[in-house]
Amino acid sequence: MSLLDALNWRYATKKMSGEKVPQEHVDQIIEAARLAPTSSGLQPFRIIEVTDPELKEKIKPVAYGQAQITDASHLLIFAAWDKYTEERIRSVFSHANQERGLPDASPSDYEVQLTGSLLSKTPEENFAHTARQAYIGFGVAIAEAALLKVDATPMEGFNNAELDELLGLKERGLRSVTILALGHRAESGDWLVNLKKVRTPASQFLIEFN
Amino acid sequence: MSLLDALNWRYATKKMSGEKVPQEHVDQIIEAARLAPTSSGLQPFRIIEVTDPELKEKIKPVAYGQAQITDASHLLIFAAWDKYTEERIRSVFSHANQERGLPDASPSDYEVQLTGSLLSKTPEENFAHTARQAYIGFGVAIAEAALLKVDATPMEGFNNAELDELLGLKERGLRSVTILALGHRAESGDWLVNLKKVRTPASQFLIEFN
Repeated sequence: MSLLDALNWRYATKKMSGEKVPQEHVDQIIEAARLAPTSSGLQPFRIIEVTDPELKEKIKPVAYGQAQITDASHLLIFAAWDKYTEERIRSVFSHANQERGLPDASPSDYEVQLTGSLLSKTPEENFAHTARQAYIGFGVAIAEAALLKVDATPMEGFNNAELDELLGLKERGLRSVTILALGHRAESGDWLVNLKKVRTPASQFLIEFN
Repeated sequence: MSLLDALNWRYATKKMSGEKVPQEHVDQIIEAARLAPTSSGLQPFRIIEVTDPELKEKIKPVAYGQAQITDASHLLIFAAWDKYTEERIRSVFSHANQERGLPDASPSDYEVQLTGSLLSKTPEENFAHTARQAYIGFGVAIAEAALLKVDATPMEGFNNAELDELLGLKERGLRSVTILALGHRAESGDWLVNLKKVRTPASQFLIEFN
């Protein structure tokens, strides 16, 4: 199936069956997000996978009672770095240098310049940037889920601070940004499934300078 | 080709050949972004397609002289709504209601609540949100490009305000957030193409609560 067909097949599933998504498919969705490009390759986000039923029950009220939280087979919580630090940046470059067989005794000019630029900004400005990088991975994960015919509901409707607290994300230097709930659509009871998919017409979506 | 294979094939091409990408492929990449999900289906971003050589020459200094701007066949500039307005939200819901054959005489409770919530925030808070939605489409577009074996370089390194000015985006209520330069990798001269793709190890990227 082409990606365009897959994107037309998918929708923000409101009623999931509770059926378990094969772990192999979940792993492929996470791998797609891991392979997604990010600014300077820093990958300033992580995915938190939740299947534990008790934890999902605790997350549900944090997400205003939305049924997908507990009906989903797996929750993928995308959490971005709360800020850039010299240590975090160094760690990424050091790992890349090792993997590429490049010298790593001292940071390259590029790394020094990048680090200076990122650290000159406030933590909130950093987080605005790291969150956007997480959304690239989020988009790629949504694409992979659709190709695998795994239903995936993008969910921003939750209390981020409460979720961070519940998962201990602050201690990890992370802040939750969005959730992808994975499962399979229920056979009935979903108000959205039979509604036509509507998008901004291409003539309005695209602005051409050709 | 699977999406994972495609993502492993792709890289942030530094040296493009100048060869023209078939318009059919570009259209499919834009269509993938148009089909990407966004918060409440608002699609608060647009894509600006640039092929005009003179305009690319003008954009180049705004992007600090990076060669991909002019070597690329097509530039896709992702630009997000500068803020939410009642009129913009109404327009999206009205269109959806028409397409779905639903009554549209007055906004639904959901639309009223959503509008109130979004308009209670500052334009900068709105833009932080619209920009993230643009990045979902950006991620999906990157996935589609890779599947079509079109080289695509994600580029955030440009002066946003200057690009907005050059393209007249302010008048359209848009702010540029990122660029996807499309083309084909040159046969030689790219310092990155032969370097191993490195990503954060899965063991660090994924945090499990199972």
